[in-house]
This record gives sequence, C-alpha cells and structure tokens, in this order.
Amino acid sequence: MKQLKDRIRKDGRVLNGDILKVDSFLNHQIDVVLLDEIGREFKRRFEGEKITKVLTIEASGIAIACMTARHYGVPVVFAKKARSGNIGANVYTSVVHSFTYDRNYDITVSKQYLSADDSVLIVDDFMANGQAMHGLIDVCEQAGAKVAGIGIVIEKGFQDGGRRLREKGYHLESLAIVEKMDPENGIVFREQ
Amino acid sequence: MKQLKDRIRKDGRVLNGDILKVDSFLNHQIDVVLLDEIGREFKRRFEGEKITKVLTIEASGIAIACMTARHYGVPVVFAKKARSGNIGANVYTSVVHSFTYDRNYDITVSKQYLSADDSVLIVDDFMANGQAMHGLIDVCEQAGAKVAGIGIVIEKGFQDGGRRLREKGYHLESLAIVEKMDPENGIVFREQ
Repeated sequence: MKQLKDRIRKDGRVLNGDILKVDSFLNHQIDVVLLDEIGREFKRRFEGEKITKVLTIEASGIAIACMTARHYGVPVVFAKKARSGNIGANVYTSVVHSFTYDRNYDITVSKQYLSADDSVLIVDDFMANGQAMHGLIDVCEQAGAKVAGIGIVIEKGFQDGGRRLREKGYHLESLAIVEKMDPENGIVFREQ
Repeated sequence: MKQLKDRIRKDGRVLNGDILKVDSFLNHQIDVVLLDEIGREFKRRFEGEKITKVLTIEASGIAIACMTARHYGVPVVFAKKARSGNIGANVYTSVVHSFTYDRNYDITVSKQYLSADDSVLIVDDFMANGQAMHGLIDVCEQAGAKVAGIGIVIEKGFQDGGRRLREKGYHLESLAIVEKMDPENGIVFREQ
C-alpha cells in the first residue's frame, strides 16, 4: 500500500534493536484518515471472504479494527491482556510471549463474543515473531470460529512470524513488509 | 441519545457494586455502527467548537475516539497507562487513582502530540468519579492545550465526577446519564 509506505518513510523512525516507531500516526497519535484507507484496503484484499467479526488485541489494534470493521458493518472484538476483574470467568484464554518485554501474558476473549458461527478477520498494527497472532488464532480455534483472514499493517519481514503463518496456509495480507531497516540507512520494503 | 439508552436497557447488565456491564457493544465487543452514531452525536453537541485533536485513554476509549475523530478529520491521541519502554522520556504524565482496583497508575502522553496550539475534545466510555478525566485534563493543562469539550458515553450520575466538572465550567456532554441502577430494578436515566 503505497500511501502507507510513503508515510512510514516520512514519519517512521528506526531505532536500535529492531524498533520501528510509528507512534506519530499509528499507535499513540492515530491518523484516522489514513486508518480509514487502511480499512478500505483490507476490505479490498479480503474480497470474497465472508467476515462476521473483526478480532484484534488491545490497545493499538483497536483503532485499526474499528476503522476496518466499519467498512463491513460488523462488530469488533478485542482480546484483553491479562485478566480484568470485570471480564468474568467465561473466557477463552491463551498465553502470549512478548519478546519486547521478555515475559508472558494472558489474553482473554469472552465466550459470548466468539463462536463457531463466526468467520473472523484478525487485524493488528505489527507482526514480528507472530506471538500475539498465535494467541488470537488459538482463541478462534477454541471458539471453533473460522480464521478467514489476517490483516497486518506493518510486517517485520526479517522476523519469521509472517512466513510461518503463510506456510500454514493462512490468508495473510500485510500492507507494508519491512525487508530490512537500520538507523543509518533507513527502511527497505519488500516488493509486493 | 435515545438509541444509546435503548441499547443500554436492552444489553447492559447491572451487577452489584455499581458495575454496569456494556461489554457486548461498548468495551469488549464493539458495535462500530452504534459508535459511528455516537461520534456523529458528539460532533453535533460540540458544534461551533474548533477541535484539532481527540484525546482519550487506552483501551476502550480508543474505539470511541476514532469513531468521533473521523467526523472531524483530525487525529486521535490516546494516553497510555503506565510507562511503556518504547514511549520515550519526553512525555506529559499524570497520576490517576482507580477506585475499581484501589490503586494509582500513571498515564503518559508524548509531548510531540499535544501542544498549546491544540483545542482538544476529550472522550471516554465511562465517567464515575472522574479520576481518569482529571488526569487527561491535567495533561492538556501541562501542554497548554485548550479543553474545548468533554464527551462521555455513559456517566454514572450518582457519582460526582460529572457534577464537579460542570461546576468548574467544562463543556461536558454525556450521552446517557445513569441516575440510579441496581440488579433488581434496572436502570433509571436522568432526563436530559
């Protein structure tokens, strides 16, 4: 998606340790006009797939999920990190390992909001090792829901989360795939 | 907002301890069609106010902020809870007390995304004691930004956060104000 790649080139900052900061438009300040275009692009790329829910994980995934779901007119469900006192016991849970913080956390989704009747589009802002995505897929499998597609805004193509999901046969669409990056030379995107 | 009150009556559940669960449409599963109407209603109620940013707090506020900001075509900024390793040191911070969990937490907003040039609409899903809102207002004051309005989806009118903000002169609009509620007799809304 050219508009997105141009924006990453213009406003993204590459820090040491494989960190790409895009918090000026994607995950702290949010450019909703761009996100609306991102949602429209996901809809185009998953054309023909029946989508009944858009699933993501808090916090920054929520913005992307909402601006995608509105093009379908279907609800968003967001997985919560760790167990909240108010969420109740009737939840699907999965354990996610965060390489960034080197710790495990639980994600939870209420059983009320995901079922075998659902055909789910999972979206998130980033994919690197794919740990959070595996947790979300696990939750869908527990519910018996179909994973109709996976939409990622920025994939770190030099890490193996995306490759492994494609090998497993998932329909994964990443709007920008970073082939390599470093603070001196900037970002090289994969040709798509 | 009648559509919202009808939905709360239909799908909200009142639990003991002043908890109103609306996680089937507002803060776990999200009805984006309803949220788009909520955003439109905020735009109508704050007509005449210049809005340059919509500010909220993660996580469930993000959905409301996005579906409001898109009617203005302005960015969302969401305050993060606690300090994230990636956010950098250049942040406004404020301490918020959570009565629900009986603990304090920090909220942070990068100084890059809020300034004295901004005229801010602050939105959130709930207001009870108004602690989180005071933190968001504090952050705006630190930035020198104008608080042009405060938009709340559901105000617990039997707690004093809303009253105190109105007394201070803030333009606060709550789309549904719960006057009283209990598990047996349900919800009574304030006439507005």
